Formats: sequence, C-alpha cells, structure tokens
Amino acid sequence: MVTTEDMVENLATLAKNASYKLSALTSEEKNRALLAIAKSIDEHRSLIKAENSLDVKAATAQSLAKPLIERLTLSDKAIDSMIESINSIVNLSDPVGKLITSRTLDNGVELRKIRTPIGVIGIIFESRPNVVTDVTALCLKSGNAVILRGGKEAEHSNRAIMKAIDEALTKIAFVPHAVQMIPIADRRAVTQLCRQNGLVDVIIPRGGEALIKAVSDAATVPVIKHYKGVCYVYVDEAADEDMALKICHNAKCQRPSACNAAESFLIHENIASTFLPRLSELFLAAEVEMRGDESCLAICPTMKAATEADWSTEYLDLIVSIKIVKNIGEAINHINHYGSHHSDAIVSSNKGAQLQFTKEVDSAAVYVNASTRFTDGGVFGLGAEMGISTDKLHARGPMGLEELCTYKWVGIGTGQIRD
Amino acid sequence: MVTTEDMVENLATLAKNASYKLSALTSEEKNRALLAIAKSIDEHRSLIKAENSLDVKAATAQSLAKPLIERLTLSDKAIDSMIESINSIVNLSDPVGKLITSRTLDNGVELRKIRTPIGVIGIIFESRPNVVTDVTALCLKSGNAVILRGGKEAEHSNRAIMKAIDEALTKIAFVPHAVQMIPIADRRAVTQLCRQNGLVDVIIPRGGEALIKAVSDAATVPVIKHYKGVCYVYVDEAADEDMALKICHNAKCQRPSACNAAESFLIHENIASTFLPRLSELFLAAEVEMRGDESCLAICPTMKAATEADWSTEYLDLIVSIKIVKNIGEAINHINHYGSHHSDAIVSSNKGAQLQFTKEVDSAAVYVNASTRFTDGGVFGLGAEMGISTDKLHARGPMGLEELCTYKWVGIGTGQIRD
Repeated sequence: MVTTEDMVENLATLAKNASYKLSALTSEEKNRALLAIAKSIDEHRSLIKAENSLDVKAATAQSLAKPLIERLTLSDKAIDSMIESINSIVNLSDPVGKLITSRTLDNGVELRKIRTPIGVIGIIFESRPNVVTDVTALCLKSGNAVILRGGKEAEHSNRAIMKAIDEALTKIAFVPHAVQMIPIADRRAVTQLCRQNGLVDVIIPRGGEALIKAVSDAATVPVIKHYKGVCYVYVDEAADEDMALKICHNAKCQRPSACNAAESFLIHENIASTFLPRLSELFLAAEVEMRGDESCLAICPTMKAATEADWSTEYLDLIVSIKIVKNIGEAINHINHYGSHHSDAIVSSNKGAQLQFTKEVDSAAVYVNASTRFTDGGVFGLGAEMGISTDKLHARGPMGLEELCTYKWVGIGTGQIRD
Repeated sequence: MVTTEDMVENLATLAKNASYKLSALTSEEKNRALLAIAKSIDEHRSLIKAENSLDVKAATAQSLAKPLIERLTLSDKAIDSMIESINSIVNLSDPVGKLITSRTLDNGVELRKIRTPIGVIGIIFESRPNVVTDVTALCLKSGNAVILRGGKEAEHSNRAIMKAIDEALTKIAFVPHAVQMIPIADRRAVTQLCRQNGLVDVIIPRGGEALIKAVSDAATVPVIKHYKGVCYVYVDEAADEDMALKICHNAKCQRPSACNAAESFLIHENIASTFLPRLSELFLAAEVEMRGDESCLAICPTMKAATEADWSTEYLDLIVSIKIVKNIGEAINHINHYGSHHSDAIVSSNKGAQLQFTKEVDSAAVYVNASTRFTDGGVFGLGAEMGISTDKLHARGPMGLEELCTYKWVGIGTGQIRD
C-alpha cells in the first residue's frame, strides 16, 4: 500500500522534474498548452456541469451559506469566463527570461539578473472551482509546475476540470506531470505537501483564515499567505465630504463579499458632527448595519455599539464599524494595529495628510481619494492574478505572472578569476 | 518572573512600534545613526577586544576548530573593517521611497509601486561578531527594526558590540528599540522569535545547516534561508583547457572556506584523458585531496574513490570531488540534483552549451567562463550584504539593502470609485 507520505513525495518529485523542462519552454509552446486547455474545458462542458451539480446538491443538503453555494456553482457563464480567463493569460507577455538589470563588473564579467520560474508551486484552495484553470494557466505560462489541492466541497467539479486539463495536455504531448492534483481523501496530504523541502518551492494557501493558519503553521517550505482583508477608509478633517460619502459607499456596498471591500471607517472628530449623520443616512438607505464607538453613538444614538473585535473583523456583509478619531496619527495607528495590511484609503485634500497616510500606513495598497475596491490584478494591469498576497515578502498585493517568478544572476566571463 | 515567551513577545512588540517610526526617517537621520555607531565602536575598542578575548579563550579551551576561532577573533584590523563596513553603508543610496514602477489607470487613478522597509527583521547567527554591526547598519539604513540573536561562542563579544551600539543610539536620541539583542541564556527564545506572527516580518538564519533547518522547521513567520554552497564547475568538451585549469584552481583554492568556493568538478568525457591529468597535477601541487568517480580513477589511479555523499558535501577545505560526465545534459542534471543551487560555472567556448547551462542550471548564480567566487554582494555592486540567500523567494543570491525592502502600491485619486 502506498502511504500518504510516499504519494505526496512522489507527486512532488515528478513535479520537480517537470519544472526543469517547463523552464526551458518557449512562449509559443506554453501558449499552445493554454489554448488546448481552454478548448478542452469547452468540450467537457457537460461533464463539468454534471459533476458540479453533485457538489452543489451536497452543499445544499448540508445547508452551506448561500454565497458559498454561489461561488461553487458553475453555470455556462461561469465556464465561459474560465475559458476567457485562460485566453487572456495567453495574451499576456511571458515573464520568463526577461532581463531585470545588468552591469559589467570592473573585471569585465557581464552580470545579468534574469527572471526565471520559481519551480514547483503548491496551491491549497477552497470552494471556487475556477481556481483550477486560473492557477493552471498562470503557473504554466510562468514556466512553473503546479500541484493543486482543492476543498472537499468542490471535489467532483475539480476532478472533472482536471480531467479536461489532463486530456488536453496528453493530446499535445506536453511535459508530463506539469499539472497535478492531490486527491482529497487524506487530510494529512496537505501537511505533507507543505514539508516537501527541495521539491516544492512555495505553497500558496487561498481560503479561510483557519486554512491559511494551519498551512503556515505546518509548512517548512516558504508560504505566501492570502489572508482576507479588513480594509479601512479614513475621512480626514480636510475631506471633500461629498467625495468621502461616495467613496465610503462604494468601498462598502459595491461588492461587500470582496476582500478589498471596506469594513471599518474612521472619521476625524472635527467633521464628525456634520459628516457622520450624512454617512449614517447613506448606509441606512443601503441597509448597512452600523456599529459605532462611544463618540459615534453620542451623535447617532440609533447605532449599535461596536466591540473591540469589530475593529479587526472582516464582515463580508452589509455591516460596518465606525470610530471617531482625534487626528490622523490616531487613525494611522489604529489601522496599523487593527487592520489586515491589505487596502486602506484616506479621503483628504490636505497634501501633508495624504503623504503621511501613504507613508505610514503599512498596507499592500494605500489609496488617496479613491475606493479600496481597486486592489485587483486586472485593475492594476497585471492581467490575471493568483490572488492578493497579504505577506510582505516576495509578493505584496495582487500576484500575477511576474510574482510567480524568481530570478537568477548570470555572469558571462572570458576566464576571469577572483584575486 | 518574566517568562521567555513574554520576554520575546515584548521585544517584538517594541521592535514593531519602532519599525513604524524608522520607516518615516530621512536618509540623513539614518546615516547620522550609522556614523554614531561607527564612532562608538571605535571608542569601545578596548572593551570589545577584552570581552572578545574571553570568548576566544573559552573557544580555545573547548578546542573549537581553528577556522572557527579565527572567525571569532576580533583583532584591531577586524574592528577597523567593521567600522569601514558601516561607513560604506552610509555611502550607499537609500532604497526606501524609491519608485519601482507607475502607471495611470484608465479611470485616472495614478498608481505607484514604491519600495518600503519590510518592518522587523529577526536574525539568528553564529560565530562572527562583525555580523552585529553589518546587520545593524543594513537594517537601519533600509528603515527596518532588527532583533539579533547570536551564538553562545561569541556571547561576550556580541554583548560588548551591542553596548557600543546602544550608547551611540541613546546619545543621539534615536528611535528607541530599533536594535535589540536577545540574551542567549534561554534556547527557547529562538523558537519564540520565529513564531511572532504579526510582529516579526522575516527571520534570517545564518550559520550551519542544523541551525537553519531548526529555524525553518520551527518558524511560522517567513524565513529567508542562507544555506552554505555546494558549488560546481563543469568543464565542457569545448573548453579552453588553460582557462578551465585557471578557473578550477581559483574556484577551489583562492578561499576554500567561502560558500562560493567550488567543491565538485564535472569533466566532459571527450576531454577527460587529456584534461584530468593536468587538473590532477595542479590540485596535487596545491595540496588538494581529490576524490574521483570510477572513470576518474581509471585515468588517475592515485585518487581516492568518491562516495555518493561527496556530490553534495561542502568541504570548506582543500578537498574536491571529480566526476566524468557523458554530456552537458548529464552535468546539468547532476548539478540540479546534488548541488545547493548557490553558484555554478561552465567552462566552454560553445555558445549553445553556454546558453543551455545558464538556462537549465537552477542556481542563484550561474557563470560562463568565470570563477564561482564572484557571488558576493560587494562584487555584484550591491554594497554590503546580509548574506547570500539560497532561497528562491524574495531574495536569491546576495541580499543587500534592496532585498531588505518590500513595496507598497499607492493609488492617488480624485474621488474614483469602482463600477
């Protein structure tokens, strides 16, 4: 009998061998694989939908939350958008082999810093089956081998999509074992995958906080974490109040389930008495539940009282917490302490306050007079994204093709030795 | 009584608070701190030497290896070079606040990717006391707070150097807790430091393989590993043999204790019968012990036989292993499998072989017709270095000031919201 340990090590070894071959492919060869996958997904449409309906049925039977079931469901439109996403990655420029910088040393050695694939990417994800094709296309285009491990709730869907990918790659005789999926039966497989030092180069967990924490606790290989967002909007005393209302509303209401949606709002005390009632009216109209600190309640007594936990909670729903602050310094300290270092915004026409906020708020994305909702690989012009890193090392914010690469230094000499 | 857990968490909290202040300092303020430290090291010269002699005495009493004692010993010349190193970092340009890239989105938001400090760096290191000043200067210049933890063998030296740093920073009323050292009494402190998620942003272990493995196994915060180097030189059939001899000799003999010194040599079978005897003669003259595979022994029967372990051993001494390979493909596979992905070289005048080698060898630095000994932050023009990363994420190869930084995305708008 093959143990879980052996199974995972075997997959990782095959992936490592494949990664060396993938790193040497031309853009044309990689694009041909992506186009074949896109075609195969289209051809396997009925199978994918049939298998997906089994997952949706099980989720409904278990009374899973409605947004979760929505994310799980693969309509024809959802499958179309998986195909579109692969095609859009075909059109992105290949990051591999790009010259990052170069210099000629005094001794004449020509030194080049060149972008290269990372090697083997392990991705552990939950619910959305479209992650399988997005991640596969991004990893192959950037010359990486990938090992996927999805959640139990999407087991049938993921397997059907994987079958379509396998058949496509086999048909064009692509590098074997470039894309592999770990069967979900054994939960220990995740821990094993996170400990394949020398074979797996990085683990990217995407999903709930518990999953990400479990992975980063267990891992001995590098992890790039994709935590969710507790995003703030700070409305400064020098804010254009109409603009601030528009931004607060958009940041919260345009898509509350997104990680870059705002959860909490800080209002400068000098404008609170005029601004807060207007904001409250706006949120009330949008059916947003408001939880305020004591000073908020003094102005708007109908609000609920916020607790300590509210300042670091991602509601993913039409709920906000609101606090009145003495000055911008208190706002920045509060955001750095309670926020999730994802995306935060200031609304202010004071240049000094803008500069202080962008310098001192320690987040992946910091906005001046704009909604937090812009943090997104597509919007940033990176093409598709693996997700939004809340880590500070290697990749911060949206992770695209470049962020799936490392670099190497290549030194070209004519016999130079060191003195 | 303060527990180890509380002590480390307290240090980390103080460091995190300091890091926010450090990130906002000007280059002038940071350079003033570095110059004050350099002056203070000079003023504390007698104390440092006296304390160092206690460490050296203890090391001698314990009959530690001679190279280890040499690395531990702080002569006046060694202290001079610590001071010079700080001064050289003063002269490097400040990476913080540099614009990496920018674009204007279709909606008019101006997006800037800006280099920022990482935050709090934890460094765990062995033997060399000069690491204390090098790391302190690099971290402060890049706007980071640092927590140091040295080895027991340099305890007195490290403490004396830390006293000089503390006094200098106190005198100029610098940001408190920017540089802190963990007392070594309690070994659990290392594990604790590696688990300060949200407070410590990255751990950099420098030292023996056992230390680095222990740290990366225990850590839940990101780790950038600095393993040692098992570097290869491959002499291709199309090599200029005189050049190859010069490079092989330099890569092994110029400084055998360096991580970028070569340990193993691969020779193409088509030139082995002429080249190997010349290489053997050269190494013999340099008193280098040679361990060969079977084909080597057939040509040079006086060599020792290499074992499987030799192909991945860092000797740090005048020992080499030599293997004859059928072709460049075998050479590349061997290096990727047995090497440490640090620095490897090909000697060849065949452009196709050069290109294949630089593309397919998966190492931080890959050389064509040059010694492996060039992998060094100073030589690469990065100024000083934290060390040489053998990881692929974030930093690969020499880590200088830029590699101690992350980035943030700053979006400047005029009220834009997402549709």
